[in-house]
Amino acid sequence: MRSYNVAILGATGAVGQQMLTCLAEQDFPVGSLKLLASARSAGKTMRFMGEEVVVEEACDEAFDGVDIVLGAADNDIARRFVPVAREKGAVTVDNSSAYRLDPDVPLVIPEVNPEDLSLHRGIVANPNCATIIGLVAVNPLHRLGTIKRMVVSTYQAASGAGVGGLRELESQMARIASGESVDEPRAFAYQLACNLIPQIGGFDDAGYTSEEMKMQNEGRKIMHAPDLRVNCTCVRVPVMRSHSESITLEFERPVSVEAARAALSEAPGVALVDDPASKAYPMPLDTTDKDAIYVGRVREDISAAAGTYGLTLWCCGDQIRKGAATNAVQIAKILTL
Amino acid sequence: MRSYNVAILGATGAVGQQMLTCLAEQDFPVGSLKLLASARSAGKTMRFMGEEVVVEEACDEAFDGVDIVLGAADNDIARRFVPVAREKGAVTVDNSSAYRLDPDVPLVIPEVNPEDLSLHRGIVANPNCATIIGLVAVNPLHRLGTIKRMVVSTYQAASGAGVGGLRELESQMARIASGESVDEPRAFAYQLACNLIPQIGGFDDAGYTSEEMKMQNEGRKIMHAPDLRVNCTCVRVPVMRSHSESITLEFERPVSVEAARAALSEAPGVALVDDPASKAYPMPLDTTDKDAIYVGRVREDISAAAGTYGLTLWCCGDQIRKGAATNAVQIAKILTL
Repeated sequence: MRSYNVAILGATGAVGQQMLTCLAEQDFPVGSLKLLASARSAGKTMRFMGEEVVVEEACDEAFDGVDIVLGAADNDIARRFVPVAREKGAVTVDNSSAYRLDPDVPLVIPEVNPEDLSLHRGIVANPNCATIIGLVAVNPLHRLGTIKRMVVSTYQAASGAGVGGLRELESQMARIASGESVDEPRAFAYQLACNLIPQIGGFDDAGYTSEEMKMQNEGRKIMHAPDLRVNCTCVRVPVMRSHSESITLEFERPVSVEAARAALSEAPGVALVDDPASKAYPMPLDTTDKDAIYVGRVREDISAAAGTYGLTLWCCGDQIRKGAATNAVQIAKILTL
Repeated sequence: MRSYNVAILGATGAVGQQMLTCLAEQDFPVGSLKLLASARSAGKTMRFMGEEVVVEEACDEAFDGVDIVLGAADNDIARRFVPVAREKGAVTVDNSSAYRLDPDVPLVIPEVNPEDLSLHRGIVANPNCATIIGLVAVNPLHRLGTIKRMVVSTYQAASGAGVGGLRELESQMARIASGESVDEPRAFAYQLACNLIPQIGGFDDAGYTSEEMKMQNEGRKIMHAPDLRVNCTCVRVPVMRSHSESITLEFERPVSVEAARAALSEAPGVALVDDPASKAYPMPLDTTDKDAIYVGRVREDISAAAGTYGLTLWCCGDQIRKGAATNAVQIAKILTL
């Protein structure tokens, strides 16, 4: 079996670290492994399959001989190095938003549109975390009735802001617990512990944030649904690393709750957790460090107008895993097949 | 000026304590004051206007000579004592859900339907907290364009489960901060710290919780909108005492963002906090212990179908104050006019 020389760009961040774990969990055929990061992190070591690997500073030469790059860095770093990696013959699965809407770059959730992968020209984009989690949940229903419209409210975890976001929430909780005042926030614009922040990303002229528009822009591309309309409200909540989403769907054709549950129970990457009588429904604590997207609270949309077809549901998924690293390594693995 | 003999039924709970504060803040013309609670709390003292008041066990005789009862007890206690108080000539403003949908009982938010108060026959019901907070925010827009449909996702604070809910969240945060495991939850079905619980109340056959149906059932009565359709998803979040709501509205007639903002900026009980460019939007920490409902993130619903008129907004309000005690004391004050 062929093995592949892998580089993780941004290896020391929350997503980069998780990618390393996912490579091992998914039995990825790793030949050599390079852990690339900023100069600040160079020289640190990280463990992979029982061995210590030294983190190197990212530079053009670092991509020599690399087959697959897993990109876990910000947009500017991605724009700096992804073209270099492609030039040198590597394929990058990039978790930044830099290339997601580029028509030459497939944007892929393996459970939804794996067929798009074959069109890549050296770059595959990994979708936004909230987009992945929401679409893994709703795509099985899209196949049943064709989704026309989604109204989504998100409950997004601290990990979306990386390790700094996680540490900030932990530190704030500890200070509140000991009766101290909370430090000036840095990862978030405001205190997150015991609070909610209804802004993720910058605002556009229509009053939507960049995060809110991703669900529609990326959703249309991933589900091949150019007319899909999505109204999203993205809210940061004091939860560590699982995003949750309250989603109301409008379909072109009727989809019964029973048919929806049946489809979800067989859908790849989905765990149907939907037994209200026994208080079984998705919760972010339960999906922490798990790859599956939990879906539940599936019910008819009682507000749907006569002649329209609506369902409402609730889903949760680990933002660092399926929302980022797991999805990227799944893509990389398909690329090796 | 006439004064009124007031009794608070359930005085020692989170809402009862807040009612006591609100009586003083709203300069309610209190003659005598009775603090009624269970036998367990009898003999405790609470302060009102600088004096110690001893808590008494609720019994039929306790309502002799009382003019106004503020009910802050559960449904079974309300059903036991509210008819007694009425029999003895008192008017009860009751915060339980026992009488809310009774056609003989006005269900009132003073900013929305004060005119209904004149129809009371000894009982006025105080609406559910999430209903009050949501309707104070959307009623000014209902007046502009007539709301046909609401899709609501709530972010509800621990205080909705009373003092026990608040203490449980505090205790869980302290244990997590010190690396200890969290005690078996009692106020909530599951751990709330660092988690979200998508169930408040029991489930009906359609898969909606009692809390979720209140927004439609109470909203129709309060706004005199019998055809209003509401799809609500109610979620408990690790926030102390302010509820937040993500609301998408569909109107019968067009309502522009500018007209909506103008109406909200003049609406009683509302604070318009809506300047995305300077990161100004409602947050639950900011509304804690405040009476106003903060409304922001007002924008066009970009998912609305052609020929339909939609807006989306975000609001926050203190659940114990305007969601319960403040609203009840406002009603009581109107009754004295």
